[in-house]
Amino acid sequence: MKVAVFRKEHFNAAHQLHNPRWSDEKNERVFGKCNNKNFHGHNYDLIVRVIGEVDEEKGYVIDMKELSDIIKENILDRFDHKNLNLDTEEFKNLNPSAENIAIVIWNILRQKLDIKYDLKIKLYETERNFVEYPVTN
Amino acid sequence: MKVAVFRKEHFNAAHQLHNPRWSDEKNERVFGKCNNKNFHGHNYDLIVRVIGEVDEEKGYVIDMKELSDIIKENILDRFDHKNLNLDTEEFKNLNPSAENIAIVIWNILRQKLDIKYDLKIKLYETERNFVEYPVTN
Amino acid sequence: MKVAVFRKEHFNAAHQLHNPRWSDEKNERVFGKCNNKNFHGHNYDLIVRVIGEVDEEKGYVIDMKELSDIIKENILDRFDHKNLNLDTEEFKNLNPSAENIAIVIWNILRQKLDIKYDLKIKLYETERNFVEYPVTN
Amino acid sequence: MKVAVFRKEHFNAAHQLHNPRWSDEKNERVFGKCNNKNFHGHNYDLIVRVIGEVDEEKGYVIDMKELSDIIKENILDRFDHKNLNLDTEEFKNLNPSAENIAIVIWNILRQKLDIKYDLKIKLYETERNFVEYPVTN
Amino acid sequence: MKVAVFRKEHFNAAHQLHNPRWSDEKNERVFGKCNNKNFHGHNYDLIVRVIGEVDEEKGYVIDMKELSDIIKENILDRFDHKNLNLDTEEFKNLNPSAENIAIVIWNILRQKLDIKYDLKIKLYETERNFVEYPVTN
Amino acid sequence: MKVAVFRKEHFNAAHQLHNPRWSDEKNERVFGKCNNKNFHGHNYDLIVRVIGEVDEEKGYVIDMKELSDIIKENILDRFDHKNLNLDTEEFKNLNPSAENIAIVIWNILRQKLDIKYDLKIKLYETERNFVEYPVTN
Repeated sequence: MKVAVFRKEHFNAAHQLHNPRWSDEKNERVFGKCNNKNFHGHNYDLIVRVIGEVDEEKGYVIDMKELSDIIKENILDRFDHKNLNLDTEEFKNLNPSAENIAIVIWNILRQKLDIKYDLKIKLYETERNFVEYPVTN
Repeated sequence: MKVAVFRKEHFNAAHQLHNPRWSDEKNERVFGKCNNKNFHGHNYDLIVRVIGEVDEEKGYVIDMKELSDIIKENILDRFDHKNLNLDTEEFKNLNPSAENIAIVIWNILRQKLDIKYDLKIKLYETERNFVEYPVTN
Repeated sequence: MKVAVFRKEHFNAAHQLHNPRWSDEKNERVFGKCNNKNFHGHNYDLIVRVIGEVDEEKGYVIDMKELSDIIKENILDRFDHKNLNLDTEEFKNLNPSAENIAIVIWNILRQKLDIKYDLKIKLYETERNFVEYPVTN
Repeated sequence: MKVAVFRKEHFNAAHQLHNPRWSDEKNERVFGKCNNKNFHGHNYDLIVRVIGEVDEEKGYVIDMKELSDIIKENILDRFDHKNLNLDTEEFKNLNPSAENIAIVIWNILRQKLDIKYDLKIKLYETERNFVEYPVTN
Repeated sequence: MKVAVFRKEHFNAAHQLHNPRWSDEKNERVFGKCNNKNFHGHNYDLIVRVIGEVDEEKGYVIDMKELSDIIKENILDRFDHKNLNLDTEEFKNLNPSAENIAIVIWNILRQKLDIKYDLKIKLYETERNFVEYPVTN
Repeated sequence: MKVAVFRKEHFNAAHQLHNPRWSDEKNERVFGKCNNKNFHGHNYDLIVRVIGEVDEEKGYVIDMKELSDIIKENILDRFDHKNLNLDTEEFKNLNPSAENIAIVIWNILRQKLDIKYDLKIKLYETERNFVEYPVTN
C-alpha cells in the first residue's frame, strides 16, 4: 500500500541569476533585474514528496520527524540565510534559477534517502513562480 | 474529454498515534509526543480529486454540490469533532496516522462514488505535513 | 533534464451556468443558484504548468516573464473583468463551468506555446472548488 | 473581561461599479474596466469581528454557531450568487464598491446583533484589495 | 519610535468544551458536538503582537529569536500535543474555549515579557474562527 | 463616513542586518545568521492601509489603482530586486530590519499621499515575522 507523504520546509536566501560564461551585457539583457549585481532574495518554500509503502506496524511511510531532520541538516543548514552564488559550493558555477535549485536539492536528498523511496521536489520562489522536479506527465 | 475536479472540505478531530500490539514504552519511543495517552488533535483539510468525462449537457464532471454532500455524509459526519481512536469503528484497531486516515477515506468514498470516476485523496494534518493516496508516479 | 514550472495568475469575471438548449426550468433545476439570470462572479486563480528541458545556458525551462506575458495577453486581457457568457466569443454557446473554462484556456495557450512544452491548467473557481486539465492519472 | 471574536464567511457575487447620476462616458472614465456594463464578479471573503464580555459560564463572547447563522441568514442568503446591482435592494441606487458593501453589511448586522456587542467588518474583494469598517485609528 | 512586531507560532491540541458545574445534558445542549466526551482537536495558530520602542543600535523592538523562544518555552512546551482539559493545570477548571485560551496565554506571556512592552494575542482555532485579547476598539 | 482600505503589494530583496558602528564580532553576536556578510533575502509582503472619507460620488476612499501606482513608483521601483544595504540610499546607514523598513516606507508614502488620509504599514518579512507602523494600542 503506497502513499505519498509531503513535508514543507522554508529557507531565506539571496541570489543573482548570472551565467559566468556570458558578458555582463548579455547577463543583464537576458536576466533583467534578476541579474542585479548586488543580489536580491527570496523566502523559498520547499515541499518534499516521498512515496513509499506504509509500514504496517507504524502506519508511517517515513517518520516525518526523521524526514524533517534530513531536510534541515542537508538543505536548510546549507542554504538558509545564505547567498546562493557566493556562499555555496553547489551554485559557484551553476545559475541558481528555481529550476536548478530544485534539481540540486533533489540530488542532495536522493543521496540521503533510502532508495526504496520515490522522491520529488516542489520549490516556491514566490507564491506565483514555482517549479517541480522530477516531472509528472 | 476528461477533467480532474477537486473539492476541499474540513474536519477537526482528536487522535493518538498508538499501536495496540506494542508496549506503552515502545509506543512512546516510536511515536513520541504524538502518542500522548490523553490525545492531541488537528484541523484536517481534505481535498478529494475526481476524474471523469465532462458531461456535454451540463459542463460538469460531477455536480460539486453532490460531491460535497457525499463527503459530508460519509466522512465529515463520521470524523468531525470526534476522537478517531475512541469514537470510530475504522480506527479502533488501526493507527490513525495521516497515511491510514487517507486510505480509510478513500475506501469509504470509493464505495459511494460511481466506478466511472477516478478518485484520489489529499489530506493535510497540518500545513506542513500532508499525504496523498493513491500515489502518482 | 526536464522540470515543471508553474505561473499563477488571476482574473475576476461574472458568469452564469446555463445551457441554451434547455428550458429555463431545467436550467434552474440543474444549476440552482449558479443559474441566476443576472449572473454571479468569481476571483479565478489560474495556475499554468509548463514542462520542458532546462536550457543549460539560462537555467530556465521558459522565461517566466515571457510566460506571464503570454497568459496576460491571451487569457487575462480576454476574460478579466468580463462577463464570460456575454462578453466572450468562447462562452457564447458553451457553458462557462470551471471544467469548460480550463479546457478553453488550455486550447488558447496551446496555440501560443512552442509545441516542445507540455502544458497543464489548474483553475480555482473558489478556494474549495477547482479543476485541472488535462488529467494526471 | 472583553475579547474580540472573528468569524470568516464567504460569498460570490457579480457587480459593476456605476454611478447612475453620471453619464456612461464619465462612468467608464472613472471606473474603467470595473464599469463593464455586463458586470464582472468576485469571491468576497467577509470577516465579522464581535467584541464583548466573556460569559463566565460558557467561556464564550457569543456562540460562534449563532453568529455564523446570523451572517448566513442576513448576508449570505441576500448576496451570495447574486448580482449586487440588479438583484438587491441595497445596491439599486448605491455603487457596490467594497467600501459601500462593508458599510451595508455593518448596518444590516448591527440591527441583528445585541447592542452590547461592538461590531466591525473586514471585506476582501480580492486577496490584494480589502476594506474595514468602522475604522480603528 | 514605537513599532508593533508579530510572531506566528503553532500548536496542536485536543480539547472539549465543558463546564464542570453543569450537568452532562446541559453541557451537550450548550456546546453540542464541541462537548464530545472523548474530545476533538485543533491546529492552533498563535500570533503574538509586541509593541515597543525600536532600539536605535539594533533596529529591533525585540529580538524575534528571543520572543520565539519565550513562546516556545512557555506556551508550546505546555500546550503542544496535549489534551488541554486533562494535561494542563490551566484548564483543569476552566473551559478551554478559544477566548479562555487566549486570555491564559496572555497571562503567561505577560509574566515573562518586560513590562515596557505592550502585548496582544491572536489565536486561530480554525481558519474561520479566531479571537483576539485584549481588544482594540 | 470613514473606511479603511488596504492594498497588498510585494517585493523581493536581499539584505543583511548590520550596524556599521559595531565591530564585525558584535554584529555577528547580535544578529547571528541574519548578519551573513554576503547577504540573504526575502519575499516582502507589504500591506498599505489608508483611512479616509468615502467619496459619495465614487464610493471610494481612494482609487485603488492610484494607490497601487503610488506604491509601485515609490516603493517597489526603489526596493524590488535590490540589495537594501548596497543599492538604496535609505539603508546605506540604517539597519534594514523589518521595523526600519516599515518606518522608511511609511515616511516615503506619507510624502506622496494627501494629508487627509491616515496611513499605516504592515510588512511581512516572512509568514511568521511581521511588523506594523505606526502602532494601534
